[in-house]
Amino acid sequence: MTLQMDLPTLDDYPTRKGTEAALLYRRDPTVWGTAEDGPLSHSRLQEHDRRGYTRFGSLLDPDEAAGHLDEADRLVADPGLRDDERAVVDPSDGGVRSVFEVHRVSGAFDALVNDPRLVEPARQLLGSDVYVHQSRLDHRPGFGGGPLYWRSDFETWHAEDGMPRMRAVGFSVALTDHHSHNGAPLVIPGSHRTYVSCLEDGEHGRSGTPDRGTLTILADRHGIDTLEAAPGDVTALDANCMYAAGANITPWARSSLFVVYNSVENACEKPFGGEGPRPGFLASRDFTPAGR
Amino acid sequence: MTLQMDLPTLDDYPTRKGTEAALLYRRDPTVWGTAEDGPLSHSRLQEHDRRGYTRFGSLLDPDEAAGHLDEADRLVADPGLRDDERAVVDPSDGGVRSVFEVHRVSGAFDALVNDPRLVEPARQLLGSDVYVHQSRLDHRPGFGGGPLYWRSDFETWHAEDGMPRMRAVGFSVALTDHHSHNGAPLVIPGSHRTYVSCLEDGEHGRSGTPDRGTLTILADRHGIDTLEAAPGDVTALDANCMYAAGANITPWARSSLFVVYNSVENACEKPFGGEGPRPGFLASRDFTPAGR
Repeated sequence: MTLQMDLPTLDDYPTRKGTEAALLYRRDPTVWGTAEDGPLSHSRLQEHDRRGYTRFGSLLDPDEAAGHLDEADRLVADPGLRDDERAVVDPSDGGVRSVFEVHRVSGAFDALVNDPRLVEPARQLLGSDVYVHQSRLDHRPGFGGGPLYWRSDFETWHAEDGMPRMRAVGFSVALTDHHSHNGAPLVIPGSHRTYVSCLEDGEHGRSGTPDRGTLTILADRHGIDTLEAAPGDVTALDANCMYAAGANITPWARSSLFVVYNSVENACEKPFGGEGPRPGFLASRDFTPAGR
Repeated sequence: MTLQMDLPTLDDYPTRKGTEAALLYRRDPTVWGTAEDGPLSHSRLQEHDRRGYTRFGSLLDPDEAAGHLDEADRLVADPGLRDDERAVVDPSDGGVRSVFEVHRVSGAFDALVNDPRLVEPARQLLGSDVYVHQSRLDHRPGFGGGPLYWRSDFETWHAEDGMPRMRAVGFSVALTDHHSHNGAPLVIPGSHRTYVSCLEDGEHGRSGTPDRGTLTILADRHGIDTLEAAPGDVTALDANCMYAAGANITPWARSSLFVVYNSVENACEKPFGGEGPRPGFLASRDFTPAGR
């Protein structure tokens, strides 16, 4: 006779469970491919493994970046988008701040998220075909408000979207200048190697927010890098890297495209926390490989 | 017979009067002394005249700066100061964020505001003896809140404190690291040559706040400098320079001493706007020369 019983699922990355925050080891590689698999050299892959991010200066030429900025400005001003569930509208002025699933809204951005200049390094970093887990146009106008608090995207995607492993990477494409003073991303380099388990009800009342003590440990150990950029510069950021963005009190808007590639071998399943799967425009269930 | 009548006072720097903002010419020199009058060379005085600020790297040695930081931390933690009218307390956590007239609170800071390393360049820039119009310890804890919006201090001192001319300079003494990401001051270099007349009820409901259109003109013309600093670095900032500070969402506190020297030939009179003279701890009526 065979004893059959349901074994509890062991989650390597538990979060939003208890009352104590925890710092856990990362159980997955950061770099899954090799120098033979794509455009990044061995030393650049090592650097990505160490810091958790890689910068691509002028990946788009200035004319291309300017064209994408025009498209972004057109979308943000489109009154039809304001009532679309994929648009995030600032209640203070009715302005569109983000457009999710922007590659399904705009042909130009669809071409960009499938562009080999993005897809090939993503495939190389993740060691497989990749699909678009999320795409998002972000637009912060001048005098455009407060900071974006610290987060690891992976924590959210694991808890709320059911992303099993750390095998995803976000590509941020700068469409305007990103200065330290108009809200360029802040990154704790090396933080991607630590998984920060979050409280259900974290700082600022937002679930999935890391606690202050943990952030202090990470920042004291690793420092903080400010990712300034010019239009057309691209940054690839590991899904588990701790990042934030400063407020923008300058007159200068800041726009970027953010596209998250996930390995097709890491397709999302049942959420590991949170309140059930989020809509497809936040967390795609279409695992069709990008750029193929 | 002589006709006697009250002639209206002609104010070169009107503000908070009407409904239109205005950009007016500065009617005063920025640099009142010469290279013979103090430690700054002719070229450094020219640079101050052009940019509106001068940086003094390591004006205090590291031990001195560390001692002043200890004193600052002691003051901020002093429960007796929390109920002092000169302390600015953050209602969210009861923490002391600023201590005005700090040179009357602390012997160490009294010595510092009278230190020849600060007073001599102040005398040289203003071409006369100087007195302390205001002193202030600023302490922003880690995760310490929002940005400081743009302002010209002179606009406030003219309107509310009756400072007649642009003949004052603020010295900011860094007691901790000031990074771009933990709220280092942002300055529009060259903005000190333009007087921005403000609305009574400006942005954020604060009187004396410059409007967005004016700030855009100034920033587009001059750019924005981020004044990062190490402990012991000092910046001298013309009273009419437009400046701000970013939010601090890092774990790292930022502390500084700010002391405003005004020429004894520019002593405050009746306020030119606002609601009457402010308390002496905000705007001193003691015109005794500093460092004498």
